[in-house]
Amino acid sequence: MVFGLDDADLKVMLIQRAGAPFEGRWALPGGFVRPDETLDEAARRELDEETGLKRVFLEQLYTFGAIKRDPRERVISVAYYALCNLRDHKVQAATDASAAAWFDLHKLPALAFDHDEILKTAVERLRGKVRYVPIGFELLPRKFTLTQLQRLYEKILDRQLDKRNFRKKVLAMGILEETDEMQQGVAHRAARLYRFDEPSYKRMVKQGFNFEL
Amino acid sequence: MVFGLDDADLKVMLIQRAGAPFEGRWALPGGFVRPDETLDEAARRELDEETGLKRVFLEQLYTFGAIKRDPRERVISVAYYALCNLRDHKVQAATDASAAAWFDLHKLPALAFDHDEILKTAVERLRGKVRYVPIGFELLPRKFTLTQLQRLYEKILDRQLDKRNFRKKVLAMGILEETDEMQQGVAHRAARLYRFDEPSYKRMVKQGFNFEL
Repeated sequence: MVFGLDDADLKVMLIQRAGAPFEGRWALPGGFVRPDETLDEAARRELDEETGLKRVFLEQLYTFGAIKRDPRERVISVAYYALCNLRDHKVQAATDASAAAWFDLHKLPALAFDHDEILKTAVERLRGKVRYVPIGFELLPRKFTLTQLQRLYEKILDRQLDKRNFRKKVLAMGILEETDEMQQGVAHRAARLYRFDEPSYKRMVKQGFNFEL
Repeated sequence: MVFGLDDADLKVMLIQRAGAPFEGRWALPGGFVRPDETLDEAARRELDEETGLKRVFLEQLYTFGAIKRDPRERVISVAYYALCNLRDHKVQAATDASAAAWFDLHKLPALAFDHDEILKTAVERLRGKVRYVPIGFELLPRKFTLTQLQRLYEKILDRQLDKRNFRKKVLAMGILEETDEMQQGVAHRAARLYRFDEPSYKRMVKQGFNFEL
């Protein structure tokens, strides 16, 4: 399950199934684990094969084992989720997927298998995570405006946040570094660009906090 | 992986293997998933069969899939962890385990397979969890003293906490209810008994917080 952020929206990568079951339906990318690879390796290989995505943040999500989740046979799926920035990652469909595309999180088709449930679990995990670890490093471009960061949090939490309050809290976290650059190519008032201070960011990921918004 | 709390210590339930591989070595209880049961059902069944524990809090932990973790064949283990109060739950070894026993978290034997790693992951999860959700409902007796609650946090976090500060913070969480009963059977100053206010507790589990200690 791959989350991607473009300029405005939080997207999900889906692949269109080329064969039975659920031929033509959209699904999360995935496949079978080979005897000679670990689960992490299988997740990275399948993601690369089906979408061309490499070197993204990837973490185990949850294992789904309902009895009839695959009509062919008993299949247990170890789900992973990935975060990436759409500007840095071109997506291409490959091998057994007939198409790969980014979908807006709010405009999703009905998915094959129990992938709706996996997707829901991943969204909940992401939503839970923003409450106690910083997030955004993998999703945002290297330099970004505070408005971009706020939009990301709003997309994940699915609600509007107060601008003044958000800025105050996010700056108080001590993980942002002001650059001396301004946003390029905007017609009106250009905003300051920030970047994550990587050591502080990593410390906060380890240590956690409560980011009440 | 079962955590149990007795009066003073955080314990881990281990079973002694009755057959190869690792015969005689201690291991986490577990077994194979049957075609007609979900992962959750398999975890509950195995726990009951190997230790006699029923109706405990059980949650999926992580899935372990290193290539040679079982010398017999490729085995992928979906690990679960459970929390229980030792007073309420008698343990008995059964079926394929030759013995079942509680071990102090700090005095563990070397475990079979990669169970040391699974155990470490479970301890980390528990340690992470106390930071942002209330914990203790499943581990403590129904009524308990603030000292018992503090001991539990100290055992999980593996460090001493300041008594005054702990009490202030834990009472401010708004999930404890003072009873009009005092601790029984103590020689000197008996302490007040508290219980969890279940609706507030459950709301806090859902909502989370940051419990800086």
